[in-house]
Amino acid sequence: MGTINKVRIVLIILLTFLHLNVKSQTHPSLVLTKEGVREIRSQLGKVPLFDASLADVKKEVDAEIVLGIDIPVPKDFSGGYTHERHKRNFLILERAGVLYQILEDEKYAIYVRDMLLAYAKMYPTLPLHPQERSYARGKIFWQALNDANWLVYVSQAYDCVYDFISLADRSTIEKDLFKPFADFISIGSPQFFNRVHNHSTWGNVAVGMIGLVMNDEVLLDRALNGLKDDGLPAGMKDNDGGLIKKEGQKTGFFGNIDEPFSPDGYYTEGPYYQRYAMYPFMIFAVALQNSKPDLKIFEYKNGILIKSVYALLNLTNSEGEFFPLNDGQKGMSYYSRELVTVVDIAYLYGAKDPSLLSIAEKQGRVQLNNSGMAVALGIKNNLEKPFEKKSIDLSDGADGKQGGVAIIRNKKNEDELTLVMKYASQGLSHGHYDKLSFSFYNNGTDVLQDYGLARFVNIEQKGGGNYLKENTTWAKQTIAHNTIVQNETSHFGGDFETGSKFASEKYLFDVSNPKVQIISANENNAYPGTTMQRTMALIEEEGFEKPFLLDIIQLNSKTANQYDLPFYYLGQLMSANFAYETPKSMEPFGKANGYQHLWKEGSATLATDNSKISWLNEGSFYTLTSVNQPNDEVFFVRIGANDPSFNLRKEPGIIFRKKNAQKGTFVSVLETHGNYNKVTELATNSSSSIASLKVVYEDSNYIGVEIKSKSGVTTLFVLATKNNKANQKHRLQINNKTYNWVGTYYKTTIK
Amino acid sequence: MGTINKVRIVLIILLTFLHLNVKSQTHPSLVLTKEGVREIRSQLGKVPLFDASLADVKKEVDAEIVLGIDIPVPKDFSGGYTHERHKRNFLILERAGVLYQILEDEKYAIYVRDMLLAYAKMYPTLPLHPQERSYARGKIFWQALNDANWLVYVSQAYDCVYDFISLADRSTIEKDLFKPFADFISIGSPQFFNRVHNHSTWGNVAVGMIGLVMNDEVLLDRALNGLKDDGLPAGMKDNDGGLIKKEGQKTGFFGNIDEPFSPDGYYTEGPYYQRYAMYPFMIFAVALQNSKPDLKIFEYKNGILIKSVYALLNLTNSEGEFFPLNDGQKGMSYYSRELVTVVDIAYLYGAKDPSLLSIAEKQGRVQLNNSGMAVALGIKNNLEKPFEKKSIDLSDGADGKQGGVAIIRNKKNEDELTLVMKYASQGLSHGHYDKLSFSFYNNGTDVLQDYGLARFVNIEQKGGGNYLKENTTWAKQTIAHNTIVQNETSHFGGDFETGSKFASEKYLFDVSNPKVQIISANENNAYPGTTMQRTMALIEEEGFEKPFLLDIIQLNSKTANQYDLPFYYLGQLMSANFAYETPKSMEPFGKANGYQHLWKEGSATLATDNSKISWLNEGSFYTLTSVNQPNDEVFFVRIGANDPSFNLRKEPGIIFRKKNAQKGTFVSVLETHGNYNKVTELATNSSSSIASLKVVYEDSNYIGVEIKSKSGVTTLFVLATKNNKANQKHRLQINNKTYNWVGTYYKTTIK
Repeated sequence: MGTINKVRIVLIILLTFLHLNVKSQTHPSLVLTKEGVREIRSQLGKVPLFDASLADVKKEVDAEIVLGIDIPVPKDFSGGYTHERHKRNFLILERAGVLYQILEDEKYAIYVRDMLLAYAKMYPTLPLHPQERSYARGKIFWQALNDANWLVYVSQAYDCVYDFISLADRSTIEKDLFKPFADFISIGSPQFFNRVHNHSTWGNVAVGMIGLVMNDEVLLDRALNGLKDDGLPAGMKDNDGGLIKKEGQKTGFFGNIDEPFSPDGYYTEGPYYQRYAMYPFMIFAVALQNSKPDLKIFEYKNGILIKSVYALLNLTNSEGEFFPLNDGQKGMSYYSRELVTVVDIAYLYGAKDPSLLSIAEKQGRVQLNNSGMAVALGIKNNLEKPFEKKSIDLSDGADGKQGGVAIIRNKKNEDELTLVMKYASQGLSHGHYDKLSFSFYNNGTDVLQDYGLARFVNIEQKGGGNYLKENTTWAKQTIAHNTIVQNETSHFGGDFETGSKFASEKYLFDVSNPKVQIISANENNAYPGTTMQRTMALIEEEGFEKPFLLDIIQLNSKTANQYDLPFYYLGQLMSANFAYETPKSMEPFGKANGYQHLWKEGSATLATDNSKISWLNEGSFYTLTSVNQPNDEVFFVRIGANDPSFNLRKEPGIIFRKKNAQKGTFVSVLETHGNYNKVTELATNSSSSIASLKVVYEDSNYIGVEIKSKSGVTTLFVLATKNNKANQKHRLQINNKTYNWVGTYYKTTIK
Repeated sequence: MGTINKVRIVLIILLTFLHLNVKSQTHPSLVLTKEGVREIRSQLGKVPLFDASLADVKKEVDAEIVLGIDIPVPKDFSGGYTHERHKRNFLILERAGVLYQILEDEKYAIYVRDMLLAYAKMYPTLPLHPQERSYARGKIFWQALNDANWLVYVSQAYDCVYDFISLADRSTIEKDLFKPFADFISIGSPQFFNRVHNHSTWGNVAVGMIGLVMNDEVLLDRALNGLKDDGLPAGMKDNDGGLIKKEGQKTGFFGNIDEPFSPDGYYTEGPYYQRYAMYPFMIFAVALQNSKPDLKIFEYKNGILIKSVYALLNLTNSEGEFFPLNDGQKGMSYYSRELVTVVDIAYLYGAKDPSLLSIAEKQGRVQLNNSGMAVALGIKNNLEKPFEKKSIDLSDGADGKQGGVAIIRNKKNEDELTLVMKYASQGLSHGHYDKLSFSFYNNGTDVLQDYGLARFVNIEQKGGGNYLKENTTWAKQTIAHNTIVQNETSHFGGDFETGSKFASEKYLFDVSNPKVQIISANENNAYPGTTMQRTMALIEEEGFEKPFLLDIIQLNSKTANQYDLPFYYLGQLMSANFAYETPKSMEPFGKANGYQHLWKEGSATLATDNSKISWLNEGSFYTLTSVNQPNDEVFFVRIGANDPSFNLRKEPGIIFRKKNAQKGTFVSVLETHGNYNKVTELATNSSSSIASLKVVYEDSNYIGVEIKSKSGVTTLFVLATKNNKANQKHRLQINNKTYNWVGTYYKTTIK
């Protein structure tokens, strides 16, 4: 029996014990506590960031109170009026509850009470939401997920005004609203509640939070451990094609911690959904810590909850925006309200790490609770230290053995280049078919992009703000990513269940030399019969203005195939060192698997040893130099074909193609160089510094690449491709010269 | 004889007099003076902005001195090494000269002297520059224009170190370098020197500046009044198709002030080139003021030089970027070095206007001369006031009667909407065929864009940094602009000489009511036999979050035509309220006149009374509502067809088309509304507020448009289209209701 399971049993026993010994409960006791509120009140007017956050929230809530209570009959998708109004209601309710506690002004309690009574009046009359798209419809919202959001926030509001509301009113509210609400999203929606998925996390926490406030141990147990018998068939799927039930799945809050989080704190759905799920994870953890301190929830699974906050902060670019791995909407960042909450909580309930204060300071606001006060006090006392994002390899999978995501950074002064290489597992229903794909950033600018999702979250005109069909036909497909596509078919044939069985395998992550930082991984299941190894190295070298990115892909198959390798750049093409054709009329690049969404803007059969393509984006130049073999082709493509509703961004890409090849080696170097300023109109270092790029050695055990700079510096990079033992001795002859080294790679500079 | 000509004759007499009474000259006397330098030295260390600017320049020049002098043999186009090196040399020489004067450190004088001697050694050996593209090749650079730039700057350097250099060295430098240089770019390049064009302004000023330093009245006269006999054939053109010689053309510095500037200070080539030309205009004006104060150059033509600085500052969006009218590279702004110079000069030599100080403060640096010191002192003494950009109508043409450019602004707090409507003359060789075109800005964001030029200035990979052929085939064509195209042919058949004969006519500019700001103009020559009137009004109305833009175009032709009206938006299409087709393969939109550069992404024949198209750009929503007549068509297009070198930006547009129509009326309203935030994921006010848009009246004298909002507010706008007398009484019956008003338009709100 695993350690985790032992802990689980102890916890269950503990819970049973607690259940038998319920003490009379005080309120608030969920996120705020009586003692905590006293402490906050004693600090009012003394802690600038807290006071400013309080003033902002007060202004917002006061304005809503003036507008009056509006509880429209549910009707719209996200982005529509009734959706947005009910969403605003739950956010304001939680804030009003907190204001009542902190400011002791009854108008806030009255507002919360009256709105709760109004909801209690409407709720019993509500049928399922009229929009039928969701696999688990809600009543207030089109999906039970949003109903769960509502309850997570409103539970907190109720806790804050619990003592203010009369016993009779509480009885009405609990009987007509909270109990049936909690039952509906759990027992009434098992396909939603009993999964391992961010949806279920919200459902579990909603039920758990209201259970704690109402002192209802049945609900709490349901929240923590899931439904015992959900009656769901294994293999059932949701409306986005995600798996609902896996045989033998643990469910409930513990199940949702156990499985999706890796020991490094990486959440398998990816950072966008981790951000979304972290709020319920962390706010419920605080509630459990306050109500059930013996659970030691923050120590659970080696302190995974706090650790995951760090993982999430590391999964951002220089501007704090999350890498849009899997289904992720670009632009979401650690400035979101969820991250304000979780950074504050991670500070107070973690090690009071001063580097978290620097994130909180950038966020510019804190939560109105004891975590927020602790952070605001820390900042007031100038305790903050920079949050240094280092190169990091985050494992995926509950056991940390389902591949991972490597983030390699090179930062000089305020200039940072960041490589994100994904060799993770499928990532549940929001996963993309993109094994060994990568994205590359120049500070906050996408250089080679991950497209992210095809959705305009909460924008009603775009499919009710929900996932668009292009998310399936384009964004999830392999060709939408900077990785290998074999025979114009996505990894695992685009089959979710097959994809969910496999993860890529790390071969090497070595950032011990800050000038040569490497990630290498293997993928042997995406295309049965074909092995793929991708090695990427961010290398600082003399003769180059900035570090360059070396990319080596080796393919080996039992059959002859066509291999495509896209690079989705942004900006304006500057030059190409080869002749290419541009068509008079444009055709889609292919027929299916995402290819139908690309326009073919240009093409060439490459005749030179190296192709070189340069572009300009936001004032920086980039050059991609690639090794070509005879008959290799290159295509200039643009996203947007077969896009009848203009749902896609019409952005460009470069695709290299090898035809009819069993083995195939793609080698390229991306240089970041120079600058163009539209005001001075000066272009500096606008050309590539590479004179030649060559594969100087390749057999089944080694590959050697040589990069000659125009200034006369030669870089030799050799990788042992089948032996990653750190202490292994290697000896290899390349061009009549013998190289000896220890470890997986060898890199030298010859001048 | 006009007043200007009388002034000219007086000036010529005056100059002749001065020529006979040359007093022994002191140095510096050009931009810096002995007295001025004494004053600057006395303030060192006391004026923060000046000290900071001095430190920056010192650091830059010191670094160059360490690198040593490099004078490569001329070879490259702009963007290439020899071009950029010689460009840097002249900039650094001027700065080194100034540093010598201010800091009295001989190393700067030695650096200038040695470089001048080196140039003097090379210059006599130089043939014409090997790049043959220019109509007027230089020797150091590929075009004489850049040689003139060199001399304008280097004259100032020479003036600063004149007394330091030995008589013998001066003799060498003047005999081998400056005199032949000045002769080459004037007598030797009459097609460059004797035009009315920004090129010639640089040429004139270069010769005038070095003439002043060398006390050479022949050169000075040549600079001021041009070559008496240039031997050029009338009608000659340059390599960009611009006219070189017009019969009876006045030339020289005075000719270049007289003709291109309107009485309002608008420079007919447009703001991008005005920015470029203002440096020589203003720096030479300072030199003339110092050397020939009796000329009163700053009072010339009613103080046109200072006035033009204000015009230029008004020709910027909220971020200080120039509207890219005609050939203009987007992003150029009042942060450029030229604008630092001219704002400083306009402050000291104008009315010491405190609002200029606020621009200088944003620029964050000043010139190292007395103008810069005056500005820095003003800022030190907190004298600055905001520079308020108001709605303004700038006339074009020497007489102010060649049409103009109207800028209509509506600013609330920090939110500004700006309409730029161009009804100007052709604008010399950099003009576009875009009568009655417009662009629209939401703060610094392009909403409906002017494409600007097709060129990547100074980026060598892109055609040597020069104009690309797509500038002619796309950027200058009418279809590239937000205005009417008849029968897929550009205005004036795209013929420069014809276009240069005509300008549009203002009909009405009325911004007296800040809630209803109007520009209306007529164009009767772009298509012989067709009259066009366009009326645009920025209207603040109840029921609308922000002012909306009403656009009315009335066409009347002797023949039946096809009329196209493009709107080049940016961002992502959100919705259209009509069914449209999107093609499986994409064809160019047409064959010539710019149409060949558009892809046809979608099309529809409109069947409803109103079409409604919404898009999202940089967090704001926009909706274009248009009145349709039966059989009107609409096309979704994208720039970039027939673009084999990827020289164009692949940006979208919407084109409305009326076929086989003699008369045609296009009416539309653009709403700016709502917000989308990628971090909160909240979409606010994302839908149009317009319920209906109707032409409720139209005859040959009036047009009436009614806009009904969804909130029940009706706006009626009536324009008298043939009578623009401000005191005219009008009486009109519309839908059985009689309206009486005085003036050209009537606007009412009915609730």
